[in-house]
Amino acid sequence: MKKEEGTYSILVVNPILQSDFDEADREFFVKNANPSFNIKVESLKQGPASIESHYDELLAAPFVVKKVIEAEQRGFDAVVINCFLNPGMYASREVVDIPVVGPGEAAIHLALLVGNGFSIIDPGPRRYVSYTPTEQVRRMGVSSRFVSVRGAGVAVLEITKNMNRTTEMIGKQAEMAVREDGADIIVLGCTGLAGLAPKIQKIADVPVIDPALAALKVAEALCQLGLPPNRMAYPKPPEKVRKLPSAMRVNFR
Amino acid sequence: MKKEEGTYSILVVNPILQSDFDEADREFFVKNANPSFNIKVESLKQGPASIESHYDELLAAPFVVKKVIEAEQRGFDAVVINCFLNPGMYASREVVDIPVVGPGEAAIHLALLVGNGFSIIDPGPRRYVSYTPTEQVRRMGVSSRFVSVRGAGVAVLEITKNMNRTTEMIGKQAEMAVREDGADIIVLGCTGLAGLAPKIQKIADVPVIDPALAALKVAEALCQLGLPPNRMAYPKPPEKVRKLPSAMRVNFR
Amino acid sequence: MKKEEGTYSILVVNPILQSDFDEADREFFVKNANPSFNIKVESLKQGPASIESHYDELLAAPFVVKKVIEAEQRGFDAVVINCFLNPGMYASREVVDIPVVGPGEAAIHLALLVGNGFSIIDPGPRRYVSYTPTEQVRRMGVSSRFVSVRGAGVAVLEITKNMNRTTEMIGKQAEMAVREDGADIIVLGCTGLAGLAPKIQKIADVPVIDPALAALKVAEALCQLGLPPNRMAYPKPPEKVRKLPSAMRVNFR
Amino acid sequence: MKKEEGTYSILVVNPILQSDFDEADREFFVKNANPSFNIKVESLKQGPASIESHYDELLAAPFVVKKVIEAEQRGFDAVVINCFLNPGMYASREVVDIPVVGPGEAAIHLALLVGNGFSIIDPGPRRYVSYTPTEQVRRMGVSSRFVSVRGAGVAVLEITKNMNRTTEMIGKQAEMAVREDGADIIVLGCTGLAGLAPKIQKIADVPVIDPALAALKVAEALCQLGLPPNRMAYPKPPEKVRKLPSAMRVNFR
Amino acid sequence: MKKEEGTYSILVVNPILQSDFDEADREFFVKNANPSFNIKVESLKQGPASIESHYDELLAAPFVVKKVIEAEQRGFDAVVINCFLNPGMYASREVVDIPVVGPGEAAIHLALLVGNGFSIIDPGPRRYVSYTPTEQVRRMGVSSRFVSVRGAGVAVLEITKNMNRTTEMIGKQAEMAVREDGADIIVLGCTGLAGLAPKIQKIADVPVIDPALAALKVAEALCQLGLPPNRMAYPKPPEKVRKLPSAMRVNFR
Amino acid sequence: MKKEEGTYSILVVNPILQSDFDEADREFFVKNANPSFNIKVESLKQGPASIESHYDELLAAPFVVKKVIEAEQRGFDAVVINCFLNPGMYASREVVDIPVVGPGEAAIHLALLVGNGFSIIDPGPRRYVSYTPTEQVRRMGVSSRFVSVRGAGVAVLEITKNMNRTTEMIGKQAEMAVREDGADIIVLGCTGLAGLAPKIQKIADVPVIDPALAALKVAEALCQLGLPPNRMAYPKPPEKVRKLPSAMRVNFR
Repeated sequence: MKKEEGTYSILVVNPILQSDFDEADREFFVKNANPSFNIKVESLKQGPASIESHYDELLAAPFVVKKVIEAEQRGFDAVVINCFLNPGMYASREVVDIPVVGPGEAAIHLALLVGNGFSIIDPGPRRYVSYTPTEQVRRMGVSSRFVSVRGAGVAVLEITKNMNRTTEMIGKQAEMAVREDGADIIVLGCTGLAGLAPKIQKIADVPVIDPALAALKVAEALCQLGLPPNRMAYPKPPEKVRKLPSAMRVNFR
Repeated sequence: MKKEEGTYSILVVNPILQSDFDEADREFFVKNANPSFNIKVESLKQGPASIESHYDELLAAPFVVKKVIEAEQRGFDAVVINCFLNPGMYASREVVDIPVVGPGEAAIHLALLVGNGFSIIDPGPRRYVSYTPTEQVRRMGVSSRFVSVRGAGVAVLEITKNMNRTTEMIGKQAEMAVREDGADIIVLGCTGLAGLAPKIQKIADVPVIDPALAALKVAEALCQLGLPPNRMAYPKPPEKVRKLPSAMRVNFR
Repeated sequence: MKKEEGTYSILVVNPILQSDFDEADREFFVKNANPSFNIKVESLKQGPASIESHYDELLAAPFVVKKVIEAEQRGFDAVVINCFLNPGMYASREVVDIPVVGPGEAAIHLALLVGNGFSIIDPGPRRYVSYTPTEQVRRMGVSSRFVSVRGAGVAVLEITKNMNRTTEMIGKQAEMAVREDGADIIVLGCTGLAGLAPKIQKIADVPVIDPALAALKVAEALCQLGLPPNRMAYPKPPEKVRKLPSAMRVNFR
Repeated sequence: MKKEEGTYSILVVNPILQSDFDEADREFFVKNANPSFNIKVESLKQGPASIESHYDELLAAPFVVKKVIEAEQRGFDAVVINCFLNPGMYASREVVDIPVVGPGEAAIHLALLVGNGFSIIDPGPRRYVSYTPTEQVRRMGVSSRFVSVRGAGVAVLEITKNMNRTTEMIGKQAEMAVREDGADIIVLGCTGLAGLAPKIQKIADVPVIDPALAALKVAEALCQLGLPPNRMAYPKPPEKVRKLPSAMRVNFR
Repeated sequence: MKKEEGTYSILVVNPILQSDFDEADREFFVKNANPSFNIKVESLKQGPASIESHYDELLAAPFVVKKVIEAEQRGFDAVVINCFLNPGMYASREVVDIPVVGPGEAAIHLALLVGNGFSIIDPGPRRYVSYTPTEQVRRMGVSSRFVSVRGAGVAVLEITKNMNRTTEMIGKQAEMAVREDGADIIVLGCTGLAGLAPKIQKIADVPVIDPALAALKVAEALCQLGLPPNRMAYPKPPEKVRKLPSAMRVNFR
Repeated sequence: MKKEEGTYSILVVNPILQSDFDEADREFFVKNANPSFNIKVESLKQGPASIESHYDELLAAPFVVKKVIEAEQRGFDAVVINCFLNPGMYASREVVDIPVVGPGEAAIHLALLVGNGFSIIDPGPRRYVSYTPTEQVRRMGVSSRFVSVRGAGVAVLEITKNMNRTTEMIGKQAEMAVREDGADIIVLGCTGLAGLAPKIQKIADVPVIDPALAALKVAEALCQLGLPPNRMAYPKPPEKVRKLPSAMRVNFR
């Protein structure tokens, strides 16, 4: 394991159009990275302004995968796809030989390492919260430790407008997840909430997992573990005709 | 329920570039549809030549969803996304008010209606078969009735080149799934195998589910059941900036 | 697939003594069948007046199976056993070569094709609702998508006495299943509620599955799919002495 | 807890027509009962000669439930339904206030008290073994500890004809379940194998659960635990018209 | 099966320091044992005063296992480790050839034999109830039948101080588990509540399982079933250096 | 997050008597730690020479917890309990406010971050492999992604005697887990195999998780995430009399 400063470099892909989040995220990731890791944060030139649906996830994914392929070509050692829904994560693992980490997946596994049952607090509208997290958890095969999902009623693009209000609304649902649903770990369901965990922790009185931070730590660990690409789980796609808009086109080995 | 001939129209989207499959699929679907249903089969102008990976699934998805949105605008009553991996199925359900059916999902539910434990026979290379079907089944929450997945070692684009060989290779794995793994239903894992079920049935001596046919029958049923769109499970994505190549651009209500 | 009018004939067995339901059911099934399907509805000469317990299910079952065997001998192409508890369904599949469909099973699979998590609304007394549906769902292996079961407090034989009151009481529980339990699909837990789904849908604001209609559509699909009987899952019972009251006696091949 | 000799009386219902098994079973149960328990074994006057299918299970069930109701009226303290498929067990619990025990259910729970993963060895034909046990285990919710089911190829009515051969064939499959499937407990899948466990134990070198004996011990325990009937799980069926052949007719409170 | 009075002897190990419970437990077990069973109750000379945490469980365990090994050497036929958390149960099974029964495990399996879904009522503080029972149930693989766990807010060492208050507080939670959570069986989560089940049963109106009594009945059954030790599930630990305080030291074969 | 060299200190507890492993482990952990982390490796003064059974796990646990409590008092920031069975992990989390990491738990979660289905390769005798890992996986709630466990037939204390032979034997089983069982990730089931992963990786051709390394990386991440102790999942044990041998005695806050 190499440990000199800046030995490894990680690209954090914000799978959305350039936004306020970019600079904040850059600071957040740099501050939290281990010394051996250089961090770069880049957003998309094409795609949705935010991801709050399967539809947005799917519009972002081809551009994310392209960036992941290019990241490997540019020499990065790992990529974090900085969105709780992990858009393009599985496909990316097929086409590159470096670790590709998704915050949703990373956060849920870290949560299970510090408690018994977790709830996800999504910023999204209260009424529409159950669908993607529930399916994501089922897909991961960890439903028996999933307690609940709650929505706080904050639109993703509103998160940073009034951080006090965001904190209060997320905190309230986190606290209810613990008291009413029986959760003993909270997973924040959006990387737009990066940095908020310590405050929510005080309100909910249980550990709160920050998905962006979880993804960073998993990416660092995977770099240092020196694991080979998993070609059994993620085989390289066969060559074939793929007719695509130039913005999606990219070659991979 | 309306029953006059041609009352309903279903668009079958082949989520790949135009190919040999198109005409065969048109005949297959028309032959098997109920009298009240008109069928149209269309493939993509952009996208991959076939879908054999998460990567290809993801490249096809934005073009599929666009076609689904346009199908609703053109007056179709339902859409079948004609690939076992159901590319873009969940996202499509968010953006239109008509039923959107995926063959993988439809076939597995039909299988569970005619037996106890199912195996999926994928045309793909023998070594790389476990990854997507296993995850798909887990995501659907029916793992306790999933027996095995087996790959036959036929590339998707080779399926139609030598149908006798394809039948023999698929049949052999189906037969082994029954005899060695204990399956009592076979699900064909690729819509490129449409029409092959009766032959495989004779070899494996258990019911064999044709995913394209399963999707057609589910689409017909959903048209006739008159169910409203499920906005609780698939909420309409909020409006926002989405910067996309023109080939991906589309408006939805 | 044959499509001429009246090509196929389906026997709907009401697994109870002749009742008000018979004529209403006949109209309901005929109205909703595809043109190629002739429908006949018949009830039992012996058995219980309604099925609201394992005990009634078990009293009805031998007479149901006899009717199923005779249906095949009379030339029917499929049978629907018109009760949510599917009395005699598995046994029937052992003794005939035509599809035998149960509304409970059909409705739950259709539900899973239009949403994420389902609740069952049973007409039965509020206090005694959890037992059979929960076990039925566990037996089907789909517990991870089962949200809740709720009873509305209407006795089966009271359902048709005051349809407005029935609708209101069922609707109220459906609405609570969505709002409080988090369901996004409602399955009506009794075929005595046939035809009520559209009204409940308006109240609960999510898709509502009518089990009788679900069973009809599945029976039609199975006829058209041309699947062989599943002798692996439902082997033909060996010949042996069976000493039975004449009303239960029947021969099968 | 009363402990005088013969304080309690248990009726063992052989849910088949009178046979060789009756006298052997009587001896077996009497020998193994605790002193406070009187045992009576009775078979059916109507029903199948043996139970090897859902169909036979369903033909036996109404006569079993009638016997259970009468057993309570005759003063028995508990009933064992002496068949691995527990025909009529759930319904019986609805109509009487005494414990009703099924060997399949009892044996599986006892198995889980003495090891980690169990296999069921069914006497039945090798080809048709997976269907009922798998469903039974799923219905009980213990699939995660179920290792496999194997059939030995002995017809139920042949079991006693050549006990050495039966032992050898059952033993061989038990031994393979341990060595090849990884089971560490064997459950005999038929009460016709009563008394065979010690011999199979020597062959398979792991504990072997005799379902008849398991049911007896559970019935004794339930008598002594003094539990009330579970009217929440098994509510008393409402009164209604039930038109039945005289051989099925019976009143319950 | 031997049935003379006092044929078998069972050692009940109270895995805590000597206390008020000892004499009460002795009476309770003797009163409830079958005539063929002699019972002896012994507590620990070293260990915790009560077990309310993983920490206390772990402190008790080495002394429990020592007592179990000695019990076999003293000629006992079975051991009950008299605590719901079954401290040292798995390890004990590795080192002796007699049955070792834990009340938590025994009670949960008995519960599943008399109903559909169980709740555990723990005496412990209301806030901290979810952790060990949930994990215990998951480890047993019966989560799909687990309804809830509730804590009554009584410290273990306070249970006997005011039995009326204890009964009332436990009863209240049991009643809520039935009415609000949907349980149809209650499992008392502490052997310190031995003898309380009949009173709780009256309050909650469903069967209530006494874990001490469940363990006794399972221990009796295992003695009589004559099962061999399960060396596949619980292999004998290999010989090696074990450097231990004299109070923990013991030899086993 | 602090990043200066040596900011954090982690105690690795080898939960066995002093041995050859100590020095090798010290080198291994120091080499693999991030610059901000100081590592100390200490073994037990009392306990078993190795852990290959529940019995040994239980003998080690009280001494492990004592060391963990003392580690916190000595100022360590986290503890790794260096054994795949995580002896004393849950109890330790109750009594200290610093992260306590177990290699079995850490390795399984890391495995799920790099593939779909994992197998555990245990050094232990081939015959006795299924028991603890299977239960551990079930307890963690991740059974649906568990493929198999295989034993290589190497006693723990023989591992280092002939590393080539150990590698070959472990590698062979890993390769069979991939080819025959369908695993796409291998988890080494013993921390005594630390450092062997790269060699096994070459043989099995899939990623291989080293549990000691996984634990180190999780411990580092938990230090840096700044999570509070989870008092909801692991409440502080109440004060009470605990009478213990001096070697087990320790105070905690």
